[in-house]
Amino acid sequence: MKKKIKKIKAAILIIGNEILSGRTQDKNVAFISNWLNSKCGISVNEVRIISDDEKIIVKNILALSKKFNYVFTTGGIGPTHDDITAKSISKAFKVKYEYHQEAYGILEQYYGKKKFNDGRKKMAKMPRGAKLIYNPSSAAPGFITKNVLSLPGVPSILNSMIENCKRFLLKGLKIHSKTINLFTVESNISKQLGAIQKKYKKFVDIGSYPFFRLGKIGVAIVTRSTSQKKLKNVNADLMKLIKIKKIKTLKL
Amino acid sequence: MKKKIKKIKAAILIIGNEILSGRTQDKNVAFISNWLNSKCGISVNEVRIISDDEKIIVKNILALSKKFNYVFTTGGIGPTHDDITAKSISKAFKVKYEYHQEAYGILEQYYGKKKFNDGRKKMAKMPRGAKLIYNPSSAAPGFITKNVLSLPGVPSILNSMIENCKRFLLKGLKIHSKTINLFTVESNISKQLGAIQKKYKKFVDIGSYPFFRLGKIGVAIVTRSTSQKKLKNVNADLMKLIKIKKIKTLKL
Repeated sequence: MKKKIKKIKAAILIIGNEILSGRTQDKNVAFISNWLNSKCGISVNEVRIISDDEKIIVKNILALSKKFNYVFTTGGIGPTHDDITAKSISKAFKVKYEYHQEAYGILEQYYGKKKFNDGRKKMAKMPRGAKLIYNPSSAAPGFITKNVLSLPGVPSILNSMIENCKRFLLKGLKIHSKTINLFTVESNISKQLGAIQKKYKKFVDIGSYPFFRLGKIGVAIVTRSTSQKKLKNVNADLMKLIKIKKIKTLKL
Repeated sequence: MKKKIKKIKAAILIIGNEILSGRTQDKNVAFISNWLNSKCGISVNEVRIISDDEKIIVKNILALSKKFNYVFTTGGIGPTHDDITAKSISKAFKVKYEYHQEAYGILEQYYGKKKFNDGRKKMAKMPRGAKLIYNPSSAAPGFITKNVLSLPGVPSILNSMIENCKRFLLKGLKIHSKTINLFTVESNISKQLGAIQKKYKKFVDIGSYPFFRLGKIGVAIVTRSTSQKKLKNVNADLMKLIKIKKIKTLKL
């Protein structure tokens, strides 16, 4: 018998008033989640978006780091007054907030001694014991404290750093996924879909998402499972249903 | 003396595995938050994205509805098995989950008696006592239960319904906002910006967001306040700083 690997679950904590206010459209949730899913077999089970407020950050770090295997934070690690992620994480875990020697060295070299001002030095301050997540695009590193990985908020920089998170993460079972696009409406198949979901309850997650495409209304049926066999079976059942109902599919 | 109106705060609860998995990019947070800010003087102070799981929905509805004046939920009010928002809210507030007569009537008329099948009927099931949020684009109404407003997940439909939420909401103080785009780097102004934020601590919220535009690196300084006077003062201070530092601004 194969050894069962426990599901590995993560949360994402987006720190930033600009996302909450609607000024900036978040793009990091979808990026991190897709990456964790496809590259690490880790699923994201909760996301929170909160403001740049120390008390609120501390509370959420403690709640999420207890509940999930990993927490990814984005935002609040730059040089300005509203960048308080590192300080707040130090407070949450009751460790000192201090210069990280290696980070200090990286930043000093990047900017040059003369231009290495207080704002830039701030980016080397981290919770004691943090390990660095290297940043190939703009030097200032992210860091991991216990099970919390802190990344910047700017998507292009975050994207360039994500692969450097891998060495800190346990690998879970790969989550396989299949999408069938149907030219029908949800209510035409909702009953049968419910029955199929019931049959595969524990093993396959079936989602149903309406779409508008080519001037027509359709439904995307998304099945997700760590078992390729179960995924095949559920999709065979779906194809039977599609045949009986004479529903046209959309090939992408 | 003017009567002080208490700040009105809202949370958004995005319900849907498709957002968590990264398959679908959420667009509702920015839309709802912008609308609440500009049209209702209500700020969004927390967002959570959770899966289509009854226990998890119940827990989050209870936590957020207690903590904020309003909670907006999106997703999970369609006809399929994974649409469990209405049922979960009923459970959270310990009220019956049953047909809403007016909603039933609206849907029956929209689809016609013959095509009004079980899946479609499900969309008329709501927590007892819910009031309808009318849907001008696809009939199926949203609803408000206590301080929880439930909207669909499809952005175009949600957008068409948002104005119908207004009559359920208290109006807060308008939140004014001003953005100055600077061709500089954050660390060049971080110290002074911190001092200005300290000066206006309780009255103005100052955010600093790096951007890349026209091949140059810049910083957007966003100030937000319910007081137009305070906002003017803080921006005068910012302009002084910009002059001293000889920073070029970008007019948009």
